[in-house]
Amino acid sequence: MSEKIHRSVPVRPSPTLEDLATAAGVSRSTASRAINGGSRVSPEAQAAVDAAVVSLGYTPNRAARSLVTRRTSSIALVINEPDARVMMDPFFAAVITGVTEALRETEMQLVLLMSRAGGDASRTVRYLRGGHVDGAIVVSHHKADGWTEDLAASGLPTVFIGRPWDTGLGIHYVDVDSFEGGRLAALHLAATGRTRLGTVTGPLDMTAAVDRLAGWNTGLREAGLPPGPVAEGDFTTPGGAEAAALLLAEDEGLDGIFAASDIMARGVIMALQASGRSVPEDVGVVGFDNHLTAPGELPLTTINQPMVETATKAGRLLLADIEDTRSNRDPVIFPARLVMRASTAV
Amino acid sequence: MSEKIHRSVPVRPSPTLEDLATAAGVSRSTASRAINGGSRVSPEAQAAVDAAVVSLGYTPNRAARSLVTRRTSSIALVINEPDARVMMDPFFAAVITGVTEALRETEMQLVLLMSRAGGDASRTVRYLRGGHVDGAIVVSHHKADGWTEDLAASGLPTVFIGRPWDTGLGIHYVDVDSFEGGRLAALHLAATGRTRLGTVTGPLDMTAAVDRLAGWNTGLREAGLPPGPVAEGDFTTPGGAEAAALLLAEDEGLDGIFAASDIMARGVIMALQASGRSVPEDVGVVGFDNHLTAPGELPLTTINQPMVETATKAGRLLLADIEDTRSNRDPVIFPARLVMRASTAV
Repeated sequence: MSEKIHRSVPVRPSPTLEDLATAAGVSRSTASRAINGGSRVSPEAQAAVDAAVVSLGYTPNRAARSLVTRRTSSIALVINEPDARVMMDPFFAAVITGVTEALRETEMQLVLLMSRAGGDASRTVRYLRGGHVDGAIVVSHHKADGWTEDLAASGLPTVFIGRPWDTGLGIHYVDVDSFEGGRLAALHLAATGRTRLGTVTGPLDMTAAVDRLAGWNTGLREAGLPPGPVAEGDFTTPGGAEAAALLLAEDEGLDGIFAASDIMARGVIMALQASGRSVPEDVGVVGFDNHLTAPGELPLTTINQPMVETATKAGRLLLADIEDTRSNRDPVIFPARLVMRASTAV
Repeated sequence: MSEKIHRSVPVRPSPTLEDLATAAGVSRSTASRAINGGSRVSPEAQAAVDAAVVSLGYTPNRAARSLVTRRTSSIALVINEPDARVMMDPFFAAVITGVTEALRETEMQLVLLMSRAGGDASRTVRYLRGGHVDGAIVVSHHKADGWTEDLAASGLPTVFIGRPWDTGLGIHYVDVDSFEGGRLAALHLAATGRTRLGTVTGPLDMTAAVDRLAGWNTGLREAGLPPGPVAEGDFTTPGGAEAAALLLAEDEGLDGIFAASDIMARGVIMALQASGRSVPEDVGVVGFDNHLTAPGELPLTTINQPMVETATKAGRLLLADIEDTRSNRDPVIFPARLVMRASTAV
């Protein structure tokens, strides 16, 4: 009887290249070129084929690859940044280390993609949809990354590190409690007797930056302090220094600054010292990340963000999603905690 | 007549999965699993299949992929380092930036592979041979990377950044004149009146480190100076500091140090200052790379290594090699030049 039921469900055949070409209104050879890199394809034809790929749920190489295997034994780590210098941020080294750890006992090859390097993110999306990898981990997601929807629709197992902007797409993600981290930073600076507090945020097109700022403002309110000056940074040391100068221009009596990353906090301390202020005597500084302070630098009070563990978790969840399409997709949130060091000593 | 000649050359058919299984003495399904990631394959069967892949020149997915296209429209940048923290070295950001620049006007997706992360380089070689990419750029090559030969034999277009150990394999490469850079460092320190000179080398299982040391020794000889103390570093700042301490233990009157990378030179300066010596008054320091000095740091005399341009060249050569199997494979060597700054001022 169960056999009967199974037989009564029609097997939907995978769409062929012909189906795709018909849906896109192009020739078979144009469709082929469009899905395989887009050389010698007009932008109109490319757009039509891209749309047809999504609407049909077409996976270009699946049929071809399944002659040998359905798996590529590789997963992508997609870093959505236009500038390779972001790789110098210890954050990405921790992410790579963590994901690598998750794959250690497997045969999976990790491939890194800088999705916005060179400017054309659609190239990366085509690559991800093209059957070259079994799944993807996405990190450093920005609000303008409009391809999140395409990726979710493609059916490629995907786990985000950091909450995606549109959680309605059902994308699986891991995160650190950035809101709580921002809140703890404000409460700690207030608890050390500081009352004129400002913050250097991350880029506000990233959920981590928005969450840290929201937590910061909540902490100020809980401590009975007024909202202080806010300057947007870019998660780099020079950007942190520039933003700190803006804060000081707004309130020269500032006695505490929370920077939403450790490498920005380094820039904040440099700007404070350049202005003749001492840390922690004149101004206390709190970072976010808990990267090791370089030898010879002032030990930094910070919010511990367990990035290696978070990234390992993302890798394990992705492996589970690849094995089982019905795996649990609930987000996993790691706690943030305050680590007190010399930069806020009283 | 020319047609006759062409016809007289038998077309050698591509080896099939059956051919491969027969040559390896395993079943077709075992051969399939072995070439596609190796899960549930005994080490013996894996080794037999790997050997057969090389001897037959078998390219697993070529037949399957050519149903749609022969190209993947992606190239790999292989970074042979076990630890993701190397990505924090500006050297790799420059390499990624340069290769990305070469691909900017193409549809090629750059995929980064950390070949020794997690320990199993054979996984990376299988990936590269598996038809997932159209070519590879290899950087940070170490002497013990025994798979260079397999890669060269696979026929995958490959360009090394930095001279490979075995130039007899005919591998295409680009390099910077490291020998001349080491020589210029010695001559410059001698020209500033310093006479007791030592060097912190890079890892001596890398040709760049060996070449810089050879150039350094040649420069000392040309300047009429005796060979000074040598300590091996690891291209990290803490490693540079440790190596400098060894040099000072060997000759506490040292007045000049050449470090084979800028980030090691930073560690050398930290170690000198920690020992109560001032730079450049007591000891002059020369680095290698010409990365921007961080704000607030002592400007570093260094050897300019045009890494972005070198990597762009590697990318362009690889694209040419992919297009034309008979392209010119001569190595391209970029010049090194001295950049004088405060760390050797007199």
